[in-house]
Parts: sequence; structure tokens; C-alpha cells
Amino acid sequence: MIIDKLYEAVEKKGPVCVGLDTSIDYIPKDFLKKFTSLYDALFEFNKRIIDATEDIASCFKIQIAYYEALGIEGMKVYSKTVKYLRSRENIVIGDIKRSDILDTAKMYAKAHFEGDFEVDLVTLNPYMGMDSIIPFLEYLDKDKGIFVLVKTSNPSSKDLQTLYAGEKRVFERVYDFLKPYIESNLGRYGYSPIGAVVGCTNFDEAEDIRKNLKGMFFLIPGYGAQGGKKEDVKKLLMDGNGGVVNSSRAILLAYKKYDDEFFLAARKELLRMKEEILSAI
Amino acid sequence: MIIDKLYEAVEKKGPVCVGLDTSIDYIPKDFLKKFTSLYDALFEFNKRIIDATEDIASCFKIQIAYYEALGIEGMKVYSKTVKYLRSRENIVIGDIKRSDILDTAKMYAKAHFEGDFEVDLVTLNPYMGMDSIIPFLEYLDKDKGIFVLVKTSNPSSKDLQTLYAGEKRVFERVYDFLKPYIESNLGRYGYSPIGAVVGCTNFDEAEDIRKNLKGMFFLIPGYGAQGGKKEDVKKLLMDGNGGVVNSSRAILLAYKKYDDEFFLAARKELLRMKEEILSAI
Repeated sequence: MIIDKLYEAVEKKGPVCVGLDTSIDYIPKDFLKKFTSLYDALFEFNKRIIDATEDIASCFKIQIAYYEALGIEGMKVYSKTVKYLRSRENIVIGDIKRSDILDTAKMYAKAHFEGDFEVDLVTLNPYMGMDSIIPFLEYLDKDKGIFVLVKTSNPSSKDLQTLYAGEKRVFERVYDFLKPYIESNLGRYGYSPIGAVVGCTNFDEAEDIRKNLKGMFFLIPGYGAQGGKKEDVKKLLMDGNGGVVNSSRAILLAYKKYDDEFFLAARKELLRMKEEILSAI
Repeated sequence: MIIDKLYEAVEKKGPVCVGLDTSIDYIPKDFLKKFTSLYDALFEFNKRIIDATEDIASCFKIQIAYYEALGIEGMKVYSKTVKYLRSRENIVIGDIKRSDILDTAKMYAKAHFEGDFEVDLVTLNPYMGMDSIIPFLEYLDKDKGIFVLVKTSNPSSKDLQTLYAGEKRVFERVYDFLKPYIESNLGRYGYSPIGAVVGCTNFDEAEDIRKNLKGMFFLIPGYGAQGGKKEDVKKLLMDGNGGVVNSSRAILLAYKKYDDEFFLAARKELLRMKEEILSAI
């Protein structure tokens, strides 16, 4: 089960995930100059970051929007990056946040669990309900998994997610409809490959969340650049596992903070972040 | 404003939208045989459908998942199809259902309102709230528009969308946070380029919806193959405008019903559907 592998990776390397939400603006000018193609530079930037961090990151998250924004050539870099990551046995989360009706969701599952864009886990949006998620579950026995958006890290997550629908909030209702599928797919460490995206920002009830969303492994965005703090992360992690904290910008742009080559700076920042989180747990 | 153009197209051609959710299984074998490349066949299939229906369809909706499922080559066909549609001055809705935090949503807006994948309107998922939608609104004055998922056509839309959050249901709360933006962006026919996806299936309160979602133009999926009926559509359309009814499978697979070439059958089915809807209004 992919979630057991992820749990073991966290045991070994710590609860940190490197986010390859690589905006072309992030590539240092000196590095960019070495390439005739912007897309080659983008891939090589990612590759250097991966090479410099894979021994200390439990997984990588790649945000497809940054590549989609560059059209066909961008999608080729996305494909090349996920293939490179998987060829080196890294666990890869495709941050795609897709959702659609059942027949269409089948197509998205095929798109991201097979072929050019194949990753190990994807993020999904729950607004359309359970039948928009079911087609992805057919890949659980092919060692795939999902993270469903539960409570996101952005300010407007309050617009719907934290509204009370009866005694429970909307995001807790997401757990309710996922629950039977989570419980019938638990791995050896008590977590299911049906995980949750739970931000560590603007969030007072992290402890409750960890208690209530039983069996869900957490993908935790919002750390660093978005304002998430180690105290919040602490509440979401059980004994240092059961979740991974993602950082993208703070790692990709670490060279602005340290006087180092960008990939060395990225490594330094990831180590710093890991230490900061581990010290809080 | 794109929504005025769409309103005028509906006045001229009726409230029907052709859905290019083209599964490769839909391409008739005889036609497929003419091509050495599956991807050429897919584009040519779309092209024949477009050529045979554009004078009687007010717009086209293209479901990106079917192309994403085919990887890079599929995305090229998506790009080629939207470019072909726009070159012939058809109004094109990219059915992408994206959502993400503000900085990432900017990337999605760039991806689908500029460059290889440029369309006129996109569908968006509201689960993450208003800040996930704002970056798309920056394109309103560039003649772009959006359809936000409000009440979708799939059975599991009940899992979240129709839950009561206080006195209103979750989908009505979507309208609440969009409302100020709708009201400050009304076109000359009373509709805003911030429209809504409202399914015509499993839905008892269509009349209420039309009354309550003031200023929103409707994209109405679920007609035909998904079980939507003309009586339901009637309630969602005001005097035959203010929305478009999409049909994909029933049109793309019309050749299984009529003894005709697939594109002639598609035209016949679209005319039949249009007549059926107009007769009900």
C-alpha cells in the first residue's frame, strides 16, 4: 500500500514534503542563462532540487497548475519531472485538485495514475461528492492513493468548509462520506490511502481534526510562506507521523535567504524546516 | 462581455451547447480506419462534429479530462480543438472544474485564458471559496467568463451541495459569496459573466434556483444520457434564455440511433433536442 510506504518514508526521513510548484520566475537568472530553452531550464531546476533533497524528503508534491500555465511545453516538463521522480523511487503527489462526475472522473484517474502524468497520489476536490472520488479508488490495489481536500490553507476556506451543516461543519461531512471507504482500506500503520489535505493556517481546531479524521493521513500545506507555524503542525501530527508538511516557495526560493547555489540553499532550508518541526513534536 | 455574446447566440441559435467530451471509444471504427494516428482521428472527429453543428449550437463545451487521459498527445488534440473552435468564432467553454489557492489559481487562469488552451469561459469548483475564484475575474474585461459549480448533475451532489448550512443549503452559500461580484459585473441582458453550473437531474427546486441565483447565466449539464428532462430544463430557463443546455454523449453517439454518418446524425440529434427543449419552454 502506497500509504504504508509513505509512513515508512516519514519514519526514515521526517514528515516533510518538497513542493515543486515551480514558477518560472523562481529560476535564478544565472542558471536560466545556461539554457537556450526555458522549458529545459525549468526541468533542470527541478532536477537539481530533487537531487539535492530526495535523501531527506519523504515525498514530493508537484503542482500541475504551474506547468499547465505554460501550455503543451509546460505539460511536457510536468511529465518529465514526475517520470524522473518516480524513476528514482520517490513518492510523488500530483497536486491536481480535480473533480468531476463519475464517467469523467474515470478519465482523470486514468490521466494521473497511468501514462505520461502518472504519479503515486493525487489531490481531489470533494464538492461533487463520493461518486466523483470512487473511480480513483479502483487504483488503490495498484499502489495508488488520494488526498481529499478537507480543510484548506487559504483564507476563503471559511466560505464553505467551516460552515456548520447541522452539528458538523462541511469539512467534517466530507469525512463522513469517505469514512466507510477509509475503514475498509486501512494499511498496516492504521492509515488509509484515502488521505486528507488539512492546512496548518487559520486553524484553531487542529487537535480535534486529528482526533476526528481517523485513519486519514494528512498532507499539510501552508507551512512557511503561507504563514503556517510549527505549533499548528504539532497538533496535526501524531508522534511525528500520520502526515507530511509541504513547503514549496520557502524551499525553491531559499537561495534568496542563504548565500548558496539554489539547490544547496533548498537542502539547507529543508533541513532547517525539518529540525524546526521535529523540535516541536 | 462574453456573456452578452452568449445570450445573443442563444437568441439566434437556441439554448443548446454541444459537448465535446470525446472518448476515443466514441469514434466509429470505419472513420478511425482512415487515420494512421489515433490523435488525428480524434481531432478530425471533433472537427466534423463542429462543422456539422456550429450554425445551430450557441456554444461548445469541451471536457478536458478526456484529453488529459491521453497524456501529452491528448492535450495537443485539446489545444487544436479549442483553437479550431475559436478560429471559427464559436464560444468555447473549457470544462476544467479547477480550484486552488490564489497564487495557484492565477496559474490556472493563465493556462486557460491565454496560450495553448485558451477558451472563452471555464468551469470552476467553489469548495475553496472566493479567493480561489478571484484570479479568473481579472480576465472579465478581456472578454472571459466563468461557470461556478453550484448544483451538479451527479447523484452524489447531495453529499455536500444540498446540505443545509443554517437556513440555506451549501450551494446557495456559493451564490452568497459570489453575489457582490455578480452584481458589479452585469451585462446588458441582466446576466453576469460569473455563471453557474446547475444540473437538470435529481432536482426538485429548479424554479427556486432560477429565482434565487439572480444574474447568473446557467450551464445546464445532465440532459439526455444522464437523465435530465425537458420539464426540468424549462424551469431553469427564463423565456428560453439565461442558460444553455449541454449534451455530449447523446450528440456524439447519435450515429448509433440514426442510420447516418456520425456528424449528420449529431446534427439531427441536436436539432431534435433543440426542438424538444423549445417546445417545452
